[in-house]
Amino acid sequence: MSEQGTITAFAPASIGNLGVGFDMLGLALSGVGDRVSARRVEQTGVTIAEVRGLDGEIHPFLSNSAVENTASIAAKSLWDHAGVDGGVELTVHKGVPLQSGMGSSAASAVAAVVAVNALLPQSLRRSELLVHALEGEKLASGGLHADNVAPSLLGGLVLCPASLLPRTISLDVPTGISSVLLHPEIQISTAESRRSLARGYSMDQWLEQQGYLAAFVVACEKNDHALIRSTLRDVVIEPQRAAAVPCFTGVKDAAMAAGAYGCSLSGSGPSIFALCADAEAANIVIAMEQRSRAFGYQCQTWVGDMKAPGAFVEDAT
Amino acid sequence: MSEQGTITAFAPASIGNLGVGFDMLGLALSGVGDRVSARRVEQTGVTIAEVRGLDGEIHPFLSNSAVENTASIAAKSLWDHAGVDGGVELTVHKGVPLQSGMGSSAASAVAAVVAVNALLPQSLRRSELLVHALEGEKLASGGLHADNVAPSLLGGLVLCPASLLPRTISLDVPTGISSVLLHPEIQISTAESRRSLARGYSMDQWLEQQGYLAAFVVACEKNDHALIRSTLRDVVIEPQRAAAVPCFTGVKDAAMAAGAYGCSLSGSGPSIFALCADAEAANIVIAMEQRSRAFGYQCQTWVGDMKAPGAFVEDAT
Repeated sequence: MSEQGTITAFAPASIGNLGVGFDMLGLALSGVGDRVSARRVEQTGVTIAEVRGLDGEIHPFLSNSAVENTASIAAKSLWDHAGVDGGVELTVHKGVPLQSGMGSSAASAVAAVVAVNALLPQSLRRSELLVHALEGEKLASGGLHADNVAPSLLGGLVLCPASLLPRTISLDVPTGISSVLLHPEIQISTAESRRSLARGYSMDQWLEQQGYLAAFVVACEKNDHALIRSTLRDVVIEPQRAAAVPCFTGVKDAAMAAGAYGCSLSGSGPSIFALCADAEAANIVIAMEQRSRAFGYQCQTWVGDMKAPGAFVEDAT
Repeated sequence: MSEQGTITAFAPASIGNLGVGFDMLGLALSGVGDRVSARRVEQTGVTIAEVRGLDGEIHPFLSNSAVENTASIAAKSLWDHAGVDGGVELTVHKGVPLQSGMGSSAASAVAAVVAVNALLPQSLRRSELLVHALEGEKLASGGLHADNVAPSLLGGLVLCPASLLPRTISLDVPTGISSVLLHPEIQISTAESRRSLARGYSMDQWLEQQGYLAAFVVACEKNDHALIRSTLRDVVIEPQRAAAVPCFTGVKDAAMAAGAYGCSLSGSGPSIFALCADAEAANIVIAMEQRSRAFGYQCQTWVGDMKAPGAFVEDAT
């Protein structure tokens, strides 16, 4: 058993779907994520002491009811699995904006299981934590989708089709490519966005998108930038979701005009991501920000490479 | 200009779809293919002198009308593109059974363009021949599908989504895996088989199949046999086509019981392929043959590795 009193873990935000791989492809971000602190307590089960927001204050919206927070649900799944006496008390520090399309709920769930895992007498391997983090994510997305949890937990670019879970596939990530993420000040509910998607698709739509995805993952493995540029597309889901983010088309046009390889919604939006050659990233961020503001949306942006690390233990005191 | 009188090219049969990649994935076979001989003549355009069958006799079904044969249509596309005076006379030696699901029409088209290319004053590069071979294939399949033409031309395992053509992607093929192909004595028309497929699919169907394909191509790149075994599946098209090949389910069950990684229809059938570890290939062939015959279908089988070469010039006299 850990002798440490409190363990704090950081888990990064992530780009779900990555445009081309709806529900099955995700990329970890750098420099933005949630922190969860965990400490053992005598009382059985998992409780949340408090949830603090970006400003460090008690979070105005998020529940600290242990059955409604993705962090505690994920932590409880792991704690019950481990069968250890007593319980755990969590403190959640949200660093990822809510309903941003940046994998906020996944980051909390992942940070929680990584922190709690470090408290266990026999820690699980990283890949074994996935199913527990997914228990939390289910609450948020209304289904079994690992495209935020897997990159937040494992880092980098992860292919994670539902039919293969709990197996996931970490892709060799291409070098020299930056990810740019813009979060405009709009909130979108993932679960609602999912419910509004069409249920049926033509063979042509399915095959076109499938072709892009299959070629994209190979392009990443082969470090083939030209092929990444040709295949980073979403012709099925993006057209259904674009209208919910009034600045999306404008921001995308600006990114593409500035040389992005591709640009789409992050998760169900409103965040918008682009991949581009490292040398173009600075110009692309500026172009995207300017366009978002021209539409009247203040925004935050982040730039990273494609090798962002997954969750890690930051502090043990 | 070539000084040679007659050029003969061989183009291999191929496994279209490879189960998991409908319309966009194909694998070249070894030891079975078509031969096309080409020689320059004074008369403008492309003509067919004769079409000979597997027995060396004049083919009883195939037309030697130059507008109805995939070899001559493909050759004409290339010849017209090259803009050379005079014409070409072809002799087609069919080695691939017709309507077998083994890419018979593609093999003729590919052998024709490779032979004619060798007659040109300025030969095109291999990748530039694809579009001309596809002109022939269009006649047979009723659409623009490169999953037979591309592996027959380029060899090995090729990812070739329609939306990226004429670009194709040759995958790194895993080592130690054999392909087994069984051709039962049934004929199926590709064009008819295609017309009978459902036009609409649920999101769940699409995503399940897309997940298998994306993970399969990565598994090939990573030489991950366990992942190949988990993903070599067709949950969308195979169920619609299986009933047309009465021995299919039995042969597949026999292959899987004997240790195959996966087993499905080759193209639109009736041929049935399996991928397996090299050491299992001999047993799997026997199991598949026995089951086919138990259903009353005589059959031929071929075994190869996944690195079968593409078309090549065999003879120049």
